[in-house]
Amino acid sequence: MIPYEKIGKVAYGGDYNPEQWPKEVWREDMELLSGAGIDTVTLNVFSWASLQPNETTYDFSRLDEIMEMVRENGMKVCLATSTGAHPAWMAKKYPDILRVDFEGRKRKFGARHNSCPNSPTYLKYSVLLAKKLAQRYRMYDNIVAWHVSNEYGGECYCENCEKAFRVWLREKYQTIDSLNEAWDTAFWGHTFYDWDEVVAPNMLSEHFEENRTTFQGISLDYRRFLSDSILNCYKKERDAIKEVIPDAAVTTNLMGAYKPLDYFRWAKEMDFVSWDNYPSNEAHYAQIAFNHDLMRGIGGGEPFALMEQTPSVTNWLPYNALKRPGVMRLLSYQAMAHGADTVMFFQMRRSVGACEKYHGAVIDHAGRADTRVYREVAKLGEELKSLGTRTLSMRTKSDIAILFDWDNWWGIEYSAGPSVDLRYLDECLRFYKALRCQNFNVDIVGVDTDLSGYKLAIAPVYYMVKGENDHLIRKFVKEGGAFLTTFFSGIVQENDLVTLFGYPGKLRDILGVWVEEEDALEKGVENEFIYRGKKYPAFLLCDLLHLEGAKEEDEGGYQKDFYKGMPAVTRNDFGNGQAYYLATASNEAFYSAFLADLCKKQGIEPVLETPAGVEATSRENENGRLIYVLNHNQQEAKVSLPAPMRDLITGEVYEGGKLVLGAKDVKILERI
Amino acid sequence: MIPYEKIGKVAYGGDYNPEQWPKEVWREDMELLSGAGIDTVTLNVFSWASLQPNETTYDFSRLDEIMEMVRENGMKVCLATSTGAHPAWMAKKYPDILRVDFEGRKRKFGARHNSCPNSPTYLKYSVLLAKKLAQRYRMYDNIVAWHVSNEYGGECYCENCEKAFRVWLREKYQTIDSLNEAWDTAFWGHTFYDWDEVVAPNMLSEHFEENRTTFQGISLDYRRFLSDSILNCYKKERDAIKEVIPDAAVTTNLMGAYKPLDYFRWAKEMDFVSWDNYPSNEAHYAQIAFNHDLMRGIGGGEPFALMEQTPSVTNWLPYNALKRPGVMRLLSYQAMAHGADTVMFFQMRRSVGACEKYHGAVIDHAGRADTRVYREVAKLGEELKSLGTRTLSMRTKSDIAILFDWDNWWGIEYSAGPSVDLRYLDECLRFYKALRCQNFNVDIVGVDTDLSGYKLAIAPVYYMVKGENDHLIRKFVKEGGAFLTTFFSGIVQENDLVTLFGYPGKLRDILGVWVEEEDALEKGVENEFIYRGKKYPAFLLCDLLHLEGAKEEDEGGYQKDFYKGMPAVTRNDFGNGQAYYLATASNEAFYSAFLADLCKKQGIEPVLETPAGVEATSRENENGRLIYVLNHNQQEAKVSLPAPMRDLITGEVYEGGKLVLGAKDVKILERI
Amino acid sequence: MIPYEKIGKVAYGGDYNPEQWPKEVWREDMELLSGAGIDTVTLNVFSWASLQPNETTYDFSRLDEIMEMVRENGMKVCLATSTGAHPAWMAKKYPDILRVDFEGRKRKFGARHNSCPNSPTYLKYSVLLAKKLAQRYRMYDNIVAWHVSNEYGGECYCENCEKAFRVWLREKYQTIDSLNEAWDTAFWGHTFYDWDEVVAPNMLSEHFEENRTTFQGISLDYRRFLSDSILNCYKKERDAIKEVIPDAAVTTNLMGAYKPLDYFRWAKEMDFVSWDNYPSNEAHYAQIAFNHDLMRGIGGGEPFALMEQTPSVTNWLPYNALKRPGVMRLLSYQAMAHGADTVMFFQMRRSVGACEKYHGAVIDHAGRADTRVYREVAKLGEELKSLGTRTLSMRTKSDIAILFDWDNWWGIEYSAGPSVDLRYLDECLRFYKALRCQNFNVDIVGVDTDLSGYKLAIAPVYYMVKGENDHLIRKFVKEGGAFLTTFFSGIVQENDLVTLFGYPGKLRDILGVWVEEEDALEKGVENEFIYRGKKYPAFLLCDLLHLEGAKEEDEGGYQKDFYKGMPAVTRNDFGNGQAYYLATASNEAFYSAFLADLCKKQGIEPVLETPAGVEATSRENENGRLIYVLNHNQQEAKVSLPAPMRDLITGEVYEGGKLVLGAKDVKILERI
Repeated sequence: MIPYEKIGKVAYGGDYNPEQWPKEVWREDMELLSGAGIDTVTLNVFSWASLQPNETTYDFSRLDEIMEMVRENGMKVCLATSTGAHPAWMAKKYPDILRVDFEGRKRKFGARHNSCPNSPTYLKYSVLLAKKLAQRYRMYDNIVAWHVSNEYGGECYCENCEKAFRVWLREKYQTIDSLNEAWDTAFWGHTFYDWDEVVAPNMLSEHFEENRTTFQGISLDYRRFLSDSILNCYKKERDAIKEVIPDAAVTTNLMGAYKPLDYFRWAKEMDFVSWDNYPSNEAHYAQIAFNHDLMRGIGGGEPFALMEQTPSVTNWLPYNALKRPGVMRLLSYQAMAHGADTVMFFQMRRSVGACEKYHGAVIDHAGRADTRVYREVAKLGEELKSLGTRTLSMRTKSDIAILFDWDNWWGIEYSAGPSVDLRYLDECLRFYKALRCQNFNVDIVGVDTDLSGYKLAIAPVYYMVKGENDHLIRKFVKEGGAFLTTFFSGIVQENDLVTLFGYPGKLRDILGVWVEEEDALEKGVENEFIYRGKKYPAFLLCDLLHLEGAKEEDEGGYQKDFYKGMPAVTRNDFGNGQAYYLATASNEAFYSAFLADLCKKQGIEPVLETPAGVEATSRENENGRLIYVLNHNQQEAKVSLPAPMRDLITGEVYEGGKLVLGAKDVKILERI
Repeated sequence: MIPYEKIGKVAYGGDYNPEQWPKEVWREDMELLSGAGIDTVTLNVFSWASLQPNETTYDFSRLDEIMEMVRENGMKVCLATSTGAHPAWMAKKYPDILRVDFEGRKRKFGARHNSCPNSPTYLKYSVLLAKKLAQRYRMYDNIVAWHVSNEYGGECYCENCEKAFRVWLREKYQTIDSLNEAWDTAFWGHTFYDWDEVVAPNMLSEHFEENRTTFQGISLDYRRFLSDSILNCYKKERDAIKEVIPDAAVTTNLMGAYKPLDYFRWAKEMDFVSWDNYPSNEAHYAQIAFNHDLMRGIGGGEPFALMEQTPSVTNWLPYNALKRPGVMRLLSYQAMAHGADTVMFFQMRRSVGACEKYHGAVIDHAGRADTRVYREVAKLGEELKSLGTRTLSMRTKSDIAILFDWDNWWGIEYSAGPSVDLRYLDECLRFYKALRCQNFNVDIVGVDTDLSGYKLAIAPVYYMVKGENDHLIRKFVKEGGAFLTTFFSGIVQENDLVTLFGYPGKLRDILGVWVEEEDALEKGVENEFIYRGKKYPAFLLCDLLHLEGAKEEDEGGYQKDFYKGMPAVTRNDFGNGQAYYLATASNEAFYSAFLADLCKKQGIEPVLETPAGVEATSRENENGRLIYVLNHNQQEAKVSLPAPMRDLITGEVYEGGKLVLGAKDVKILERI
Repeated sequence: MIPYEKIGKVAYGGDYNPEQWPKEVWREDMELLSGAGIDTVTLNVFSWASLQPNETTYDFSRLDEIMEMVRENGMKVCLATSTGAHPAWMAKKYPDILRVDFEGRKRKFGARHNSCPNSPTYLKYSVLLAKKLAQRYRMYDNIVAWHVSNEYGGECYCENCEKAFRVWLREKYQTIDSLNEAWDTAFWGHTFYDWDEVVAPNMLSEHFEENRTTFQGISLDYRRFLSDSILNCYKKERDAIKEVIPDAAVTTNLMGAYKPLDYFRWAKEMDFVSWDNYPSNEAHYAQIAFNHDLMRGIGGGEPFALMEQTPSVTNWLPYNALKRPGVMRLLSYQAMAHGADTVMFFQMRRSVGACEKYHGAVIDHAGRADTRVYREVAKLGEELKSLGTRTLSMRTKSDIAILFDWDNWWGIEYSAGPSVDLRYLDECLRFYKALRCQNFNVDIVGVDTDLSGYKLAIAPVYYMVKGENDHLIRKFVKEGGAFLTTFFSGIVQENDLVTLFGYPGKLRDILGVWVEEEDALEKGVENEFIYRGKKYPAFLLCDLLHLEGAKEEDEGGYQKDFYKGMPAVTRNDFGNGQAYYLATASNEAFYSAFLADLCKKQGIEPVLETPAGVEATSRENENGRLIYVLNHNQQEAKVSLPAPMRDLITGEVYEGGKLVLGAKDVKILERI
């Protein structure tokens, strides 16, 4: 849990790397940061080489000074362990720390995210450093959280990883026969007789493109193994810290819907979830919201920390447009609206060199307080101070769950056929966006979640049904829930082996349909179907299905091609509930209409009705319920309120229930 | 030759891999397959790891069971040798079996097509396995053919290949001086003084892109060497089988116009040609027909085996659309129409895992007989049964030959200049399609073919004239034939060295033209010329030529640019025949008109006149002549017959000479 | 300096490689070349393998014969050292000569440009060969120049280079602390404690794309190091020649705006600059002119040698269109118009094999004198002969300097942010083209140039201001010059470290502006500004700037977006001069109008006023001034002359000041 008692408000601050510039500047930093209302700094993110100049020496003198200065200035600290990039001397002395890439090339020293997760050297010295940091700074009660490493990610295919993979496989499968069965190695004569015959799947072995493999089972297990291996690095550092400081709040900064790491498994090991929000300039607000809700979801609904965002501009996009006036504030409140209890930036001051020198910062290269960016940061700082504890520690209440699963993601996108255009996130976003734009709160939950608290559960492209997870659906529907899934669902079990005797496999009885074939439509090719008197396009995939108890919900099935007349949308009454099947993909208008109907039927209410581009969410706890209203439009917008309300930020009161929001403006409303 | 006596009808079946699923399923397989009229199965394609679990052990027990079951069920067998993918243990123990790729990377175990063709280990154990299989199953008289390895292909650049390349070169060139001359190594100071100085040409040496090399001669020889090396693998297995079973019918499944292997050389070593037909969804029927005719052509006009096609869907295309109803049947008959005496599928049953699990099969994951695909397969099975021997062992009679040559293909596409858009297959297809769509039977023949049986010989972009092959043309034209070739012809001899003293080199006297320069036009840029009063576009390349005895066949030459007025189409009367030269590329309308005129002049008749989209071919032998009529359209089509005819499939009789074909329908007609 | 006394006219000829064909052909060569007015041949460019067949043997017999023949035929020689490609035996025996590529792959023997510049073997034997050649041919007084190696370029990342890089760094930085500071290694914990920890920056270390690095400072220094390393190869050969022949004129053929080599540093080591002009078919004449002016500029304004151009066609472009009639002549005179005192071709005769066999040549594969190309070459030969010495040794006089800098080029294009579309050459060309198309002579000069001779100095995207180079600008403006620069200028010093306290850093006082932020606009997105009553687009980058003494030159600033009203074009009166700042990129119309105004204000006159597509330049010396008028149009053009003039080529006199130029025609005018 976020250590509220230590902070007492929305933590406001971010990455601060004074070791990258001369000490003369530090005092200026302190003044400028404090002038902007910054109260929390993340320190020591990339200092390994400086803290450990050689194998036997540790030198904390500079960090000591920084810690002292920050404490003196009344700031809280999120203390990082610095293990996101190893020292050059270590790479030279112990090359096992260097990764081997997907092409099979041994890397040399450089960049970051550069340590092999199964390197004995890395594991030894990263953990030792975490421990030493904990020992040295345990007495600093302004440390509010420990920040292990940084943006874990990437992959390695070195010999150590290959060996560790075999150990991981042996633990999982016990016998080589089970492994052969799980991977279906009879295909193409891949039978293994010994664990040592297994090699890491990359461009030198099973892959012919990054996402295209000849053995889905092997590649899938390697993804799981890598996610676990990297998680293991985190756990070992965390344990070292907790050995010294048992009640330390330990986290690491995640990256939203980041494909390589199964964050559901990660969040279980974290005291609170934190993440870095760097949307592209074109991102719709629902895409950003999806990431927030996912990050809240992996943490079981707990509030999370927004650990990084840019105050103004990124530097690594093709076109690094400035965040327009008001947008930084809007996105900060959007994070809070979805569960964040901190607003943190990368970074406090722009570096003078290397690849991030043109990334935005609170303090610019000019070192002045009269910049647009600084002023915007300072204004938000004031507002957050005035909010105090009032927004903290609240929960999002939702009747709707979207099931999300990394294994499913990997499985779908490794699949050879039916269509390269099938992307798991895109399909999830079709549903999420339709709900979000109608202001329904949505929880994003794992596939092993007990759904009994929900009225509607949606599993977009639920391709891989692991173990007995179908029973969770079965129980949910029987007890009255509405379940909705799509084409290409129920196809395989956890090892990507097809569930025989008819798609959608384990979900077939629940859905009451048999899918005989799936037709992949080229980009631009469409079929059609009619729902409630309106024609909608069908594209991407079209299932050719037979009703086995379900009823057709569309009017007359597909309108074209040789499967004209086959149902495109079905409903099966199952127990006290209903299971819906969408046999094809359609456009936004359809998802909006269909989900609005479904919510109505299930008695699910939106947070608020708003004009397009105005987002509303709610968070609540024992002290009350807050409604966040965010105007993402370039123009002002009028919102009708169901009751008289007051805005926490300005104190304004809306007696008549009429609210006018300026462009990019935000209100946090409570009933009065 | 296809062993007709053993089959007695169009062999119908395909790849069957029961070793990939539990025995319980086998009985069900037998019932379903027999229910669909399947009579021939290809067994043992990928079982090496299972047959040889380690270096000293062979275990045929599972294959024994399968062979017994299949025999009991009255099925014929095409028995594969399983050497299309090596066992994992072998790769671990003998890494020489692993390939080095074009980038110079040593591969690890994985995928298929993975054995180095010059690996001592591969050669030893692949041949040994073939021999053991022959010894063990020689007594099975239901084996109709031996299927060596599978879809040979790919490339290797390892040290063993490099060494073998030097041996191959020494045999070819005898002295290092001849090699230097052949490769023109004086250029860029590449002179070799010792065979060992020669390295394999890839991205680490002579190449800067896959198809771009600094030394065409070296890269060309490496292609020849690789094709020969891989052919050698085939020959060694074939010999091992024939040593045991002298009259075995041995083949391997080819892949149509597959660039890496010179199939003319391959076919000479095969008892009959067999190939796998996987057209893309967008392929025009003429493209598919081209491949069939090519496969017939490499076999000297003998009937061939269609070894694989999908009954319904592929899995490796970007968009794997379903084969529409009737299309599988239509394409099966199209194969027969062009010379196939078998109709085989990949595969009998869908596998449960790995990368081909979504590839179509006769028996689906659902394991049911009531699927669309199964029903279509069964219907065709019935038809083929009813046809008996009546379509077998016939020959295609054609007055037209298209000369095709792998060396020429390689040479053209390695060429640095004049245009990257010049693709040999595209140019061949311009001519083939114009003829095919007018229902002219076409033979595709090698460049060393005696053309005396033909009335028209076309050599699209006959860039490389090897040895004295020009004499074959000269003789053909002198004796009254019509020869047609194009821009960028006669440029080089067999080592890609320019034939000096004026293009088109050795063909210059025959064609009566001197090509002074060639202008490459960017995509979208066009010139024009007039033929029989109509304007046609000129693009890709425009030769600037001078008449040296030839006459201009177009009206007024190019219509634009500084070479306005220079001839675009010429005819040279040479001996009793004519030699035509097309100095540029044009559109379909031109090729249609021009070839129709030419055929008329040469007294060449189409098989039948049909509406667009309806294809007609003929095959004949001492027992008669059959006309295949195939409606590739989505609508029905009307065809006028020149005489009363009967359809072999339905027995229907068309007295009045009027035939109405349903969409995708097929007739096999004989005169009554 | 070009050795005029030995040549006595525009040297006319080019690469001649008779060692690539049989001796029988040589006599024919001599006749044909002499018939075309060729008087100078470049010999021995790729003969290393032939000259040194093994480590201890040298064999000059063939070259002796060629040298004799050429001398007998009265030709001058540019003698190459043949070290542009090493022998195969050397690569086999001494693999250190082979490069390691950007992907970290050790290359094998092949292609050219293939020697590691830090290979001990290469350095030893290339220098020895140069020395031996000098010793053997020193007495040939028809040698007019020595041509070291050929088109130096490329890169290497081998261990020898890595070690040499460390030595280079140690020399440059003296202490590891200075290196750490220069590269800002505190960022991402990259601190180095020992020189040996530094690795070459490529795809295995700091880079994630060819042009994208995580440490700009390292990558920048590696570029400098590579340029120096390769230059060192040149210098060592040059010194070996000069040791034997102290007054030898030594050069190497450069390649215009070739990014990898800092030609300003190279030209200092060359007796005269020579370069190879291979424009693409689409190149605007101003682009070609830019390269000429750059090549003149690196040589301090001295005349240069056009060492290579194709007489007709290239072979390595995607579409190798023929040079249209007259174009070869036009481009030859264009070279002279910009400072060339030679007209040389690659090549005299087409080779029979390998990758350049379809590259144009004076003598074609047909070996005839009646080709279009030969005739055009011969006609130009005659003209050049008639011109004698009259065009030689003149200088271009210009009031305008464009500052150009390789470090700046590298720095800008390594930059992470703000926009991937920012390309240095494109920005330079915007200014150059606007000036060139109005017939202003332009000098392209280094950033350390004393600008006092100029009236206008333009530094497009002057991102990196090295050392105290800003003082050169400051002095220039103070003394009355007009200085013009753009967005993204003054950002960093020589190590790519940001100059703090406000952009444009060191140029801020001169320009009188403070740039607070820079907005990157996606391709297709535009803002607008008004200049002299006309609206112009703003794109690519838009600076958000504040006036600090400067005045706004546009009318009302940006017309859109949140920075509407901020100035887009400013002028600062500084000392006796003015400093202009363009805060954004705009279209051709703007640059034309703006620069025309500026030139007018500065009293700068164009060479001549001409219709569009007609280029005019002037060259002059103590003997007079020549005006080159070149009609790049496809149609004839009329030009008004300010005074009666005579054309040197035809002797025609234009009394009335009216000149009509045919399409692609050229006049060299002098006043009468």
